[in-house]
Amino acid sequence: MAPTIAAHLGFGSPRPLPFVALADLHLPEPRIAAPARLSALCSDDVHARASHAYGKSYGDVVRGFSGSYPSPPDFVVHRAVSTTSRPCSSGPPAPRSRSSPTAAGPASSAVSSPWWGVGYAGAVSLDLGALDRVLEVDEVSRAARIAAGATGPGLEAQLAEHGLTLRHFPQSFELSTLGGWVATRAGGHFATLWTHIDDLVESVRAVTPAGVWQSRRLPGSAGPSPDRLLIGSEGTLGIITEAWVRVRPRAAYRAGATVRFGSFAAGLDGARAIAQSELHPANCRLIDALEARTTGAGDGLQTLLVLGFESADHPVEAALGRALGLCAEQGGTGERSGPRGGSAGAWREAFLRAPHLRDTFVAMGVLSETFETAITWERAADFIERARGAAEAAVLERCGAGQVSCRLTHLYPDGAAPYFTVLAPARPGEELEQWAAIKQAASDAVIAAGGTITQHHAVGRDHRPWYDVQRPDPFAAALRSAKAELDPAAILNPGVLVDPVAARPA
Amino acid sequence: MAPTIAAHLGFGSPRPLPFVALADLHLPEPRIAAPARLSALCSDDVHARASHAYGKSYGDVVRGFSGSYPSPPDFVVHRAVSTTSRPCSSGPPAPRSRSSPTAAGPASSAVSSPWWGVGYAGAVSLDLGALDRVLEVDEVSRAARIAAGATGPGLEAQLAEHGLTLRHFPQSFELSTLGGWVATRAGGHFATLWTHIDDLVESVRAVTPAGVWQSRRLPGSAGPSPDRLLIGSEGTLGIITEAWVRVRPRAAYRAGATVRFGSFAAGLDGARAIAQSELHPANCRLIDALEARTTGAGDGLQTLLVLGFESADHPVEAALGRALGLCAEQGGTGERSGPRGGSAGAWREAFLRAPHLRDTFVAMGVLSETFETAITWERAADFIERARGAAEAAVLERCGAGQVSCRLTHLYPDGAAPYFTVLAPARPGEELEQWAAIKQAASDAVIAAGGTITQHHAVGRDHRPWYDVQRPDPFAAALRSAKAELDPAAILNPGVLVDPVAARPA
Repeated sequence: MAPTIAAHLGFGSPRPLPFVALADLHLPEPRIAAPARLSALCSDDVHARASHAYGKSYGDVVRGFSGSYPSPPDFVVHRAVSTTSRPCSSGPPAPRSRSSPTAAGPASSAVSSPWWGVGYAGAVSLDLGALDRVLEVDEVSRAARIAAGATGPGLEAQLAEHGLTLRHFPQSFELSTLGGWVATRAGGHFATLWTHIDDLVESVRAVTPAGVWQSRRLPGSAGPSPDRLLIGSEGTLGIITEAWVRVRPRAAYRAGATVRFGSFAAGLDGARAIAQSELHPANCRLIDALEARTTGAGDGLQTLLVLGFESADHPVEAALGRALGLCAEQGGTGERSGPRGGSAGAWREAFLRAPHLRDTFVAMGVLSETFETAITWERAADFIERARGAAEAAVLERCGAGQVSCRLTHLYPDGAAPYFTVLAPARPGEELEQWAAIKQAASDAVIAAGGTITQHHAVGRDHRPWYDVQRPDPFAAALRSAKAELDPAAILNPGVLVDPVAARPA
Repeated sequence: MAPTIAAHLGFGSPRPLPFVALADLHLPEPRIAAPARLSALCSDDVHARASHAYGKSYGDVVRGFSGSYPSPPDFVVHRAVSTTSRPCSSGPPAPRSRSSPTAAGPASSAVSSPWWGVGYAGAVSLDLGALDRVLEVDEVSRAARIAAGATGPGLEAQLAEHGLTLRHFPQSFELSTLGGWVATRAGGHFATLWTHIDDLVESVRAVTPAGVWQSRRLPGSAGPSPDRLLIGSEGTLGIITEAWVRVRPRAAYRAGATVRFGSFAAGLDGARAIAQSELHPANCRLIDALEARTTGAGDGLQTLLVLGFESADHPVEAALGRALGLCAEQGGTGERSGPRGGSAGAWREAFLRAPHLRDTFVAMGVLSETFETAITWERAADFIERARGAAEAAVLERCGAGQVSCRLTHLYPDGAAPYFTVLAPARPGEELEQWAAIKQAASDAVIAAGGTITQHHAVGRDHRPWYDVQRPDPFAAALRSAKAELDPAAILNPGVLVDPVAARPA
C-alpha cells in the first residue's frame, strides 16, 4: 500500500525500509535469571525478551524498527499469576535490589512501552496470554467471568457459543486483552452509553503483594467502589487476573446513516443534539473534512457524521429517524445506509485497518501519532481549534509539512471526546525528537484549555507529566498511599501513575 | 393517620405518644467552645446541638423521641467550609486531644447518626445548609455547579429557572443535599440508567486537611477516577463543598402502566426482561403483593410492576408498548395509566409519604425499618426469599408479629436492587434491641447470600460490620492509607468506612 499512501499524503517513501531481522538483534545480557522452580514457565531468549520490550506506540515502533532494544525485560514469565500464590516477591526494598514484574497481554497500544527496570536489579514481564479462557457464563444475569489474558477475538469467539457478546471493541481489539482493558480503563468503539470498560465490569480479581483483591459480583453498591480504584490503575496496585463482565445478546436490529454538514461547527451542534437526546446511538462519530478525505470516506469539503443504531430487542428505525431530524435542524443532510456500505463503510474499513498501518508508516518514514481527550460541549469548538492549532504549528515547525485531522469518538450528554490524527514526514534518526515536540505542544494545549490528557488511551509514561497537572493533588497523595500500602516494595510497574515511594518528596 | 394505620396493620397504638419538648431536653455541657474568631458562625444552644445530634434512622428517631441525647456535638458551625481556608485544624494527634468535625446537611436519612466524639476531646458539626446555591449553569453542556448544602427542592427550584432538572430524587429528596448525595453515593428513584449520583457527577470539590481536592470538569478520562474515590467516601476523606453535575431538560413525553403478575417470580422475570431490553424505563418498580396491599396500591394477591417511560426529546409510547409485550410473555397483565392515577398513583403517594411517617410510627409504637441490597439476577429469587425469611423469623421472635415486604427499586442488566420494609409492634423501651436483632438477622442473610450490605443507603455506622466482610481486604487497606494521608489526625467522621489509624492493627 505504500505507493498509494505516499501519493495520497504527498509525503513518505513509496519504498518502505525493511524490518530488522530477529537474528540481527543484540540485546543486553539478562541481569537476573528466573528462579529454578519457575524456569519451565519462563523464557529469556531474544524473541521473548524483544517481543515483550515494547508496546505499539509510534516511538515503540520506531525504536523496534531501528533494532534499538537497550532495556528489555530480563525474562518473561508465562502464566505467571496463579490462583493461590502471590506474584514474584521482591528482595529488600532498597531500589537497586528490587525486581519489577509488569503484567502484559500479547500487546499494548497507544502509550509507550513499560519501563524495564532502570534503578532496579532486574525487570520481569508477566505474560498473561495463556490465561485466555471465558471461565464461566451466567446467561440469566448476562455476565461472564473471563481470564485477564483473553484477547478480544478469543473471548468473543467463546461468548458467541452462548449467543452473547461483550460488545467492547477498542481499536486494538485484535491484540489487546480483557485485563489490559480493565487496567487501562479502555474505551470501546461505540459512541454512547455502555462503551467504556468501566460500565461493563461487574467485579474484578487482582493479585497484589498484600493479598488477593476480589470484589463481589454486584450490580450496584454503596461506599467508594473498589472496582473503580482498580479500573485504570495500570498495573500499579495489583495484577488483574480475571473479571466478571456484563455481556449481552448480539444485535438483531440495525439502522445506519451518513450525515453531511457544511462545517465542523454545524456537525458539532448536530452531534451534541444527538448526545443530549438520550437516543443512545451505537455509533455517532463526527469526522472532519480532512480525516474524511484521508480515509476515503469523504470529499475533503464536508464534515461527516457516521450514525448507527442497534438493538437486540427492538427496531431502531424510529430512533435513527429522530437523530436525522436533529441533524437536519443543524443543516445536516442524511443518507441512510447499510452498516457496511457508502461513506460509513469506507470510514469503518479505514478505522479497522489503522492499527495495522502504523508499522508501514514507520517504514515509509511517515510520522504517525494520535492524541485524544475529552471536553465539555460549551468549550468544544474552541478547544478543538486550539489543540489542532498547537499540533499543526509543531508539525510544520518540526516536519515542514503534514496534517492534523480530528474526529469525535465518544459522545456524552455533557461533552465529547475529540481524537486527533497526526501524519507528517519523518526525518530518519530524528523521529523521536519530532514526535516528542509535537506531543509536547499538543499536550500542553489540551491541558491549558481544560481537557484531559487522555480519555481512553491510558496515562502510561507518555502522558504522566500532564496527568500530574490534571489530577487533584490530594487524589495523587491518596493514590500514592494506596500504592505504598499494597505494593510496599514498589515492584509493580514502578513510576506509572505515581512515583515510587522511595523517590517521593518527604 | 394513626388510627387508620393501626387498623390496617393490626398493631401499633392509635394514640401516638407526644414528642419530648425542646425545653425538656437535658444535654451534657459542651466539652469545647468555638474559637473566638468563628463564634459568630457557631451555635451551642440546645436546639442547634440537639438538631444536629441525630440522623433519621429508626434508632435515631427512637432515641430522639425518648429525649436521649447523651453525646450531641459540642457546637455547630454554620457555613463552615470557606473557599480558601482549611477546615478546623486539629490539636495534636493523640486521640483524646482531637476534635472531630463532621459535615452535615439539614438532615441525613437511612443510617444512624454520626458519632460525636467518643475518645475525642470534642466534636463539631459543620452545617453546610447555608451553602445552598446553584452557582453556575452551563446550558450548552447541560451541567450546573451546585453548592453542597443545597437541598433537593432548593436546587430544583433554581434549576427550573433554566428549564432544567438534576432529576435525582432519592426518597429523602426534601431534606437531603447535593453534598450528602455525593458523600453517600445516593440512588435516585428512577429505576434504570442514570439514577445514581455517581453518573450525574462531572467534577467534585472537597476540602481535605491536606488541601483542596478539585477535579476537572471532564465527561470522561483515563487513570483511576478521582471522583469515584470521593463519591461514597461518607465524609472520611474531605468535606465536599460543591460539585458540577449533569442536568437535563424536564420530560415532555411520558407514558406509564401498571402490570399485574400472579406471582413474584413471574414479576421478577418480567422486570428482568425489561432491564435487559435496553428500553431504559424511568420507573420499573416491582412491588410484592404484601407491600402493594400495605401501600393501598394492590389487593394483596397480585405482584405489581409500576412502569413509566419519559423523555424530553421524543415520544415513548413505543417503548412502553414493547415493555408491556415483554411482561405479557411472563404472564403480566398491563393497564396503561397516567403517571398520577390508578395503582401506580397510589403507590407513588405512599412512596412520597413514607419518610414523613417514620416519626408517627415511632410515636405509635410501630417498629419501622428498611433494608436494601443488590444482587445478580440468577440468584435474585432465592436471595430475596432468604433475606425476607431471615428478617421475618427475627421479627416473629422479637416482636411476636409484624411483616416484611419487598420491592425492587433499581434494575440493571445484570441484577436488581431488592428493598425490604419491616413493620412490627415495638415494645416500649426495647425498640433498639428489637431493631438490632432484626438488623443483624437480615444483614447476616444478605451478606451470606452474596448481596451487598447496602446498595444506596450508605455504609455509615449501622452497616459497617457487614461492609467490612463484603469489601476486598486490599481495598480496605488502600482506603485506610488514603485516609491516613489526607486526614492524618483522623478528625473527619472517625470510624466511618475505616478505623482511625491509631486504632489500626500494626
